[in-house]
Amino acid sequence: MIGLRFLVLSGIGLFFCLVSMAMAFDILQPLPETPPVPDDNPITAEKIALGKQLFFDPRLSVTMSVSCNTCHNLMAGGQDMRPLSTGANGKKGRRNAPTLWNVAFQTVLYWDGRARSLEEQAHSHLLDPYAMGMPDEKSLVARLATIPGYVRQFEQIFRGERPVSLENIAKSLASYERTLLTPNSPFDRYIRGDHSALSAQAVRGMELFNETGCLACHFGVNFAGPAPGPSLKMGDGFYELFPNHLGSVYDKRYRLADDLGRYEVSKDPGEKRMWRVALLRNIALTAPYFHNGSVATLDEAVRVMAKTQLKKTLRDEDQRAIVAFLHSLTGEFPDQIMPRIPIASYDINSP
Amino acid sequence: MIGLRFLVLSGIGLFFCLVSMAMAFDILQPLPETPPVPDDNPITAEKIALGKQLFFDPRLSVTMSVSCNTCHNLMAGGQDMRPLSTGANGKKGRRNAPTLWNVAFQTVLYWDGRARSLEEQAHSHLLDPYAMGMPDEKSLVARLATIPGYVRQFEQIFRGERPVSLENIAKSLASYERTLLTPNSPFDRYIRGDHSALSAQAVRGMELFNETGCLACHFGVNFAGPAPGPSLKMGDGFYELFPNHLGSVYDKRYRLADDLGRYEVSKDPGEKRMWRVALLRNIALTAPYFHNGSVATLDEAVRVMAKTQLKKTLRDEDQRAIVAFLHSLTGEFPDQIMPRIPIASYDINSP
Repeated sequence: MIGLRFLVLSGIGLFFCLVSMAMAFDILQPLPETPPVPDDNPITAEKIALGKQLFFDPRLSVTMSVSCNTCHNLMAGGQDMRPLSTGANGKKGRRNAPTLWNVAFQTVLYWDGRARSLEEQAHSHLLDPYAMGMPDEKSLVARLATIPGYVRQFEQIFRGERPVSLENIAKSLASYERTLLTPNSPFDRYIRGDHSALSAQAVRGMELFNETGCLACHFGVNFAGPAPGPSLKMGDGFYELFPNHLGSVYDKRYRLADDLGRYEVSKDPGEKRMWRVALLRNIALTAPYFHNGSVATLDEAVRVMAKTQLKKTLRDEDQRAIVAFLHSLTGEFPDQIMPRIPIASYDINSP
Repeated sequence: MIGLRFLVLSGIGLFFCLVSMAMAFDILQPLPETPPVPDDNPITAEKIALGKQLFFDPRLSVTMSVSCNTCHNLMAGGQDMRPLSTGANGKKGRRNAPTLWNVAFQTVLYWDGRARSLEEQAHSHLLDPYAMGMPDEKSLVARLATIPGYVRQFEQIFRGERPVSLENIAKSLASYERTLLTPNSPFDRYIRGDHSALSAQAVRGMELFNETGCLACHFGVNFAGPAPGPSLKMGDGFYELFPNHLGSVYDKRYRLADDLGRYEVSKDPGEKRMWRVALLRNIALTAPYFHNGSVATLDEAVRVMAKTQLKKTLRDEDQRAIVAFLHSLTGEFPDQIMPRIPIASYDINSP
């Protein structure tokens, strides 16, 4: 009896496991209505509201001059429309700021995949001298502790002994970021059955996107590889890296050999110039392109990708069709009401 | 007959003139529901929408790193919470960025009153190396001309031969800025008859504000002197300047002697260290204070003003009452939905 029950339960388990794996790897799927949320950071309206204020508050940077939104500009395509961003210390980074819209569906963050969650990304970016530039957690917590409107919210939301902490700041930011979804793109409507949502050219582009080989890496919710879902959580560390193959005319033109990518984190020689698969939702709104922002237009980005990843030279007509398809990935941006940032008397000794 | 008609018409004219003068100098008045609008820049929904996009677009600065909102942060009190702002070129200015909320009711702009309209202010600030830092009109127009979403709007709104121009950019920005009103402060409600809107302490503060002499300069809609109205338009150039009197302990502490104020524009020796009367609506939200942002708290600002303007030393109790009154000038901030900034392919040769 026990053997039979075991077999049945195993079978059921295996079935759900396979179903959920299949969902994680779903080749083409519309944007889910809700984001995956980690168990250790449940999402609440209060946390989202606090995270939104923090996201737009330049006091989170050492010079009080840069907010998260400065480089991840939600009013633009979610990025700052520049090849490289300049951080709070006036230092220019080396990699293009990615959009945060739909970032909830990424399995890893950063171009080299070095952060496994939005919480981890926020945590490291606040202390990054090329980004927000805070010297340490203590300085950041001391800064926010002077703002009663924040202290009150942290106390109410996180309770515990040290409610204002880098960890809780990161949790709040991540909670707000998870709400940044752009549903109902023409592609989403098409795949849900509205075949009038795409032009014939865009449909042909979608076919070419598969035939050319783009879809082999750019699949799933964000066209960025496996997405978190029932079987896969952001934080599991499951993701795919792909190299820019050298040898084309583009190496020099777009400086593709300079940045060693994932290798700089892992020191694994097999990971030289390897990159996380880039998210393609709203890609028409996030020029310039590539890890170093060196490619100005989507037209050119498609040509360069076909050559450096797939060693193919696209016909103009096919390249245009693929671009038409990529334009269909632009979703609806929900209205964002600007948060009111809590004010405090200014500490005249601040920078 | 003609003589009699002339007399009657003159009499009627004089009557309305006096009435409207009286309104311009109204000592205490609630925030009007609508802003004054200059004849040569009628306000339309389309112009406001365009101005809002431009206001939040960092591409209006030479380095594409600073928008109007960076220093006049509408999510904070309308300013950037710092003593001095850093412009697009990384240069720090010399004077504290003022709030733009209710700025429609100012007769002149800038601490030294050198701009007579919001249009003129925007015009000069876009080309100011310490602010947006655009080298000239040509560069700015060339930048916007690459963004189809802007060109379309300028053509529809302004028509004519050169729809994208510095003048029309300034007109759009000014139109949006005129919508930034914060009605229904406790003070407004009190003066409209709701006597429960102010605490006894705040009412006492309002009396002291008059008795101490503050009201002699800080009167009218914005407590910043005469406001535009039926008789007085922004642009008429009518405004009042007041000096910081030197000789107190505050000269050195807050560097009151360093900046020669209006004199630097007019070269009139009588205008050394003279300043436009500062706007007091939402003053509790706009620390730090003074032209150089050297005073951290409202408590201290009130003490310093009483001493340097009126040569009075306030009792602690009276200073606290005046501050309670000033807190009652914080209005309701209407929800601002973030604009969507039009995107264009990036010109890789931009800064």
